[in-house]
Amino acid sequence: MRTCVSSMAAGSSMEWLKSVKGVILDMCGVLYDSGEGGGQAIHGSIEAVKRLMDSGLIVRFCTNETQNTREKFVQKLRAMGFDISVSHVFSPAPALVRILRERRLRPHLLVHDDLMPEFDDVDTSSPNCVVIGDAADKFSYQNLNEAFRVLIGLEKPLLFSLGQGRYYKETDGLKLDVGVFMKALEYACDVQAEVVGKPSADFFQTVLNDMSLQPHEAVMIGDDLLNDVGGAQSCGMKGIQVRTGKYRLSDEKHPSVRADGYVDDLAAAADAILTSSLTNH
Amino acid sequence: MRTCVSSMAAGSSMEWLKSVKGVILDMCGVLYDSGEGGGQAIHGSIEAVKRLMDSGLIVRFCTNETQNTREKFVQKLRAMGFDISVSHVFSPAPALVRILRERRLRPHLLVHDDLMPEFDDVDTSSPNCVVIGDAADKFSYQNLNEAFRVLIGLEKPLLFSLGQGRYYKETDGLKLDVGVFMKALEYACDVQAEVVGKPSADFFQTVLNDMSLQPHEAVMIGDDLLNDVGGAQSCGMKGIQVRTGKYRLSDEKHPSVRADGYVDDLAAAADAILTSSLTNH
Repeated sequence: MRTCVSSMAAGSSMEWLKSVKGVILDMCGVLYDSGEGGGQAIHGSIEAVKRLMDSGLIVRFCTNETQNTREKFVQKLRAMGFDISVSHVFSPAPALVRILRERRLRPHLLVHDDLMPEFDDVDTSSPNCVVIGDAADKFSYQNLNEAFRVLIGLEKPLLFSLGQGRYYKETDGLKLDVGVFMKALEYACDVQAEVVGKPSADFFQTVLNDMSLQPHEAVMIGDDLLNDVGGAQSCGMKGIQVRTGKYRLSDEKHPSVRADGYVDDLAAAADAILTSSLTNH
Repeated sequence: MRTCVSSMAAGSSMEWLKSVKGVILDMCGVLYDSGEGGGQAIHGSIEAVKRLMDSGLIVRFCTNETQNTREKFVQKLRAMGFDISVSHVFSPAPALVRILRERRLRPHLLVHDDLMPEFDDVDTSSPNCVVIGDAADKFSYQNLNEAFRVLIGLEKPLLFSLGQGRYYKETDGLKLDVGVFMKALEYACDVQAEVVGKPSADFFQTVLNDMSLQPHEAVMIGDDLLNDVGGAQSCGMKGIQVRTGKYRLSDEKHPSVRADGYVDDLAAAADAILTSSLTNH
């Protein structure tokens, strides 16, 4: 609880932890570091998840992961040792599929090959919108041009982005995320994308509804200051940033977003939350 | 002069043409359409350039072309039949090389292979800035990631963009231009790029200095409403948009930029300017 204490216990800043009834966990960079071979669990995180769950807190997982179907993604996490069920994981693709159905939209998809099964039942003929996810190597000039041409050919260009992350960390270094290509296409076509996933308030609200909690009763723990912490705060939740994953020292001096707490890792966050909860009972 | 008259002669709107002493011509989309095999001259444009030059007007060429060295580019235009000399052509790469020298910067280059000779004398070891041009197919995910990592690794990220165009037209369709990737890297690193080329005021001013003209004595003719027309107008020049190249009908209803005249093509622009000049003499 080393750094955790130093960052979160100043004055009365830990008081709010006592009212926490539920925890929403970001996954990549908090539970595990991605990379070759699927990545690996961050030290202490498997136990931290178990301790949070065992304590009686309501725990949900909220990810902008779009390189895999939700099912495959959870399989990967379970193989690492995390006790997570698919129904507790919220990711952008299933949320988008619901939107496409409701609004009768037919997407041109620029997404990762491994995400494609999420769209098996979606009509992609004569597209009337463009959807981009974290397509990684599929973000070639040719594929971006193709998406651009569909978009600019529409009477009213409509772009959906599965998240708006800037970059993420894999074991071999930082990698550009979908938000970067969203900005590229937004500029090319002079449109504003609809973001599905974090930090969209709708997305966080879906998770809160599933937990049957009010925003002030939940805390989001993530490594992304803007999308995890800032997004949760905009929704009325508290947000803790972990110093793992894509965390950078400069995040703690960000001009507009300030986390309600900074901790070394998920284990330290669990320590702080559980200690505070215990004090409270 | 058909459409030209209808768009430019309403009321006293042509009056300003009488004070024009110099003409700055955009190249791609005005003189020629690019595409496989180097592209082809737009009907009437070779003669229009000749007529403007023969009239005694000072004529310069201003391009954001960064897929070729200036020398090779002019060779291509001369092969099409245009009587253009290298010293009358202003392009971003030579302007950037001057800036790099003045500020002792060592760039990481993400530019077209054919532009590389412009940087032959530039030190690219231990880069302390990133330069992007219209790299076309070289805008792969891998190359963008590489540029991003250099940029975010700098204490003070410094990004130069050779132009900020959204897209251009080749014979096989619209293609994404450098500005799109500039916006991508700007977002990734939370920086603002320095744009070298149109619509930078410094760039237009260099051309005006070479012509020994005041801004109100010159008119810019281009197919790009924002970078040619808007850029020139910001500098105090007039701007005419041609309905060739990347022109789109919606340009004439743009919320913030309005050309001083819209003409079908460069031939029509030359007609309007020369008729007005003749009236004046």
